[in-house]
Amino acid sequence: MNNWDEIDTYVREWLEEAREKILASFSTSIEIETKSDRNDLVTNIDKEIEQFFIQHIKNKFPDHHILGEEGLGEKIDCTNGMLWIVDPIDGTVNFVHQQRNFMISIGIYENGVGKLGYIYDVIHKELYHAVHGEGAYFNDVPIPKLTDAAIENAIVGLNPTWVVENRKIDPKKLSKLVKDVRAIRCYGSAALEIAYVATGRLDAYITMRLSPWDFAAGKVIIEEVGGIMTDIKGEPLKILENSPVFVSKPSLHETILNKYLKEGSL
Amino acid sequence: MNNWDEIDTYVREWLEEAREKILASFSTSIEIETKSDRNDLVTNIDKEIEQFFIQHIKNKFPDHHILGEEGLGEKIDCTNGMLWIVDPIDGTVNFVHQQRNFMISIGIYENGVGKLGYIYDVIHKELYHAVHGEGAYFNDVPIPKLTDAAIENAIVGLNPTWVVENRKIDPKKLSKLVKDVRAIRCYGSAALEIAYVATGRLDAYITMRLSPWDFAAGKVIIEEVGGIMTDIKGEPLKILENSPVFVSKPSLHETILNKYLKEGSL
Repeated sequence: MNNWDEIDTYVREWLEEAREKILASFSTSIEIETKSDRNDLVTNIDKEIEQFFIQHIKNKFPDHHILGEEGLGEKIDCTNGMLWIVDPIDGTVNFVHQQRNFMISIGIYENGVGKLGYIYDVIHKELYHAVHGEGAYFNDVPIPKLTDAAIENAIVGLNPTWVVENRKIDPKKLSKLVKDVRAIRCYGSAALEIAYVATGRLDAYITMRLSPWDFAAGKVIIEEVGGIMTDIKGEPLKILENSPVFVSKPSLHETILNKYLKEGSL
Repeated sequence: MNNWDEIDTYVREWLEEAREKILASFSTSIEIETKSDRNDLVTNIDKEIEQFFIQHIKNKFPDHHILGEEGLGEKIDCTNGMLWIVDPIDGTVNFVHQQRNFMISIGIYENGVGKLGYIYDVIHKELYHAVHGEGAYFNDVPIPKLTDAAIENAIVGLNPTWVVENRKIDPKKLSKLVKDVRAIRCYGSAALEIAYVATGRLDAYITMRLSPWDFAAGKVIIEEVGGIMTDIKGEPLKILENSPVFVSKPSLHETILNKYLKEGSL
C-alpha cells in the first residue's frame, strides 16, 4: 500500500531542490531549441529538471512509472499501477522570455485515478496542491469549493490564437465568448491557468491543445474544489492522450459548453 | 527647486502604507460599482487609496497638482508646474476577482516632463521605478536598456478584445500580428504590461484605450530603458488625454507600426 504522506514529503523536498536548480540556471547560458514549431520551445533546463525528478522517483519508488514532457521517462501506454506525470517547466516560453510565470507540474495517478497534484510557481514560491478526497490547498491553506459565476461577470483564460483563424476551432465561436464575458486573460502556462480556475481567479479556461503533463496535476486539484475539466465537447479527458481542455466552475461549464462550444451553438 | 530624493522617500513610504491598507481590505467586504460599462469596475478601496495619496501629497507638497483615476484630485487642463498622476489600483477587475495582478501607478511630471515613475505590484511587493535621466529599476536593481527583438520571436501583450469585432480597430490588423508573433499574453493591468515591456518580459504591448493614469508612470519607466511609447499611429502621447497606446522595444516599434498598425498595412 502506498504511503501518501511519504510521497508528499518527497515531492515537496524535490520541488524545493528543483527550484534552486532553476534559479541557479538564470545566471548561466540557457540552450534553447524548438520542438514541433517555432513557438514550442525546450531548453536544457527543462531536460535537466525532468531528469532530476526521474532519478529521485526511480530511486525511492522503483516500481512507479513516469511520463515526462521531455520524453526522458518511459513510453506509457496504460494507466495500471502508480504513474507520475511530470512537466518540469510548464510555460517554457515564459521561462525563456520572462524568467517567471512558469510552473513545475506533477500529477500522481494510481490505476488511472488522480491521487496527488502539485503545481508550483517557482519564482513566487506558491504551491497549489491537492490530495484526492481530502481537498486542495494554496500554500497549504485550504481552497474553498468553487461557487457559481454568471457569464457576463466571468473572467476566462483564453489565448487569442483561438479567436483568429486556426486549425482547431471556428474562431467565431470563441469570439462570441470574448464579447460576452467580463474579461479575458492569457498567462501562457496551462498549469497556472488551471490553478487559477481552482482558486477562483479565473472562472474558466479554454485551450485547444494540451498534453497529459499540462493538465495531469491540475485535474486532481480542480476536481477537489468542485470544478469540471473536460474536452471541449464535454467528454472526460483521457489521462494519456493530448486533448483540447475546458475547465470551469460547475454551472458555468454547462453554460459555456452549450452556448459557445457545442456544434451548432453559433 | 524640487528635492527629488525627498519626493522619492515619501512615495515609497506611502506605497508601503497603501499596500497595508489594501491587504487589510481583503478581510472586509468590498463595495463594487460599475463605471462606464459593466467591465469597468471601481471599489471603495480604489477611492480610499486615491484619497490617501491625495491627502499625503497635499500635506507635504501643497503647491503640487494631482490627477487621479477616481476623480478625487483636481480638474487638470494644463501641465504647468508639478503634477502627480495617480492610479490607486490599476487592474481593478483583477483586484476584485483575483486579489492579485493589480498595481499602484504614480507618475510625477514637471511642466509636462515625466520625472519620476512608480509601478508597484502590491501582492508580490515588486517595485518598478524610474528617475528621469538616471535610469529605471526593478526592486532597486537597474533594468538594462532594451535590445531588439524579431517579430517572429516576440511576445506581445494584447487583449483578445482587439482581435474580435470592436469599435476601435479593424480586428484583421491585430489578427495578423497574433499569427506572426511567438506568443500573446494578456494580464489585465496596463501598468503591469508596460512594466513588463520595460523589463523585457514582453517585447511590445498594444491597447486601444488608456487614460493618463494608466500610462503616466509607465512612460517614465519605459523611456529610461530606451523603449518607445506612442499612440497606434506612432504619434507622441499627450499626458492629459485618453489614447490608444503602443509600447515596444525600439526596432520592433517601427516594424509593428509599419506592418500591422498603419493605414493600408493589411
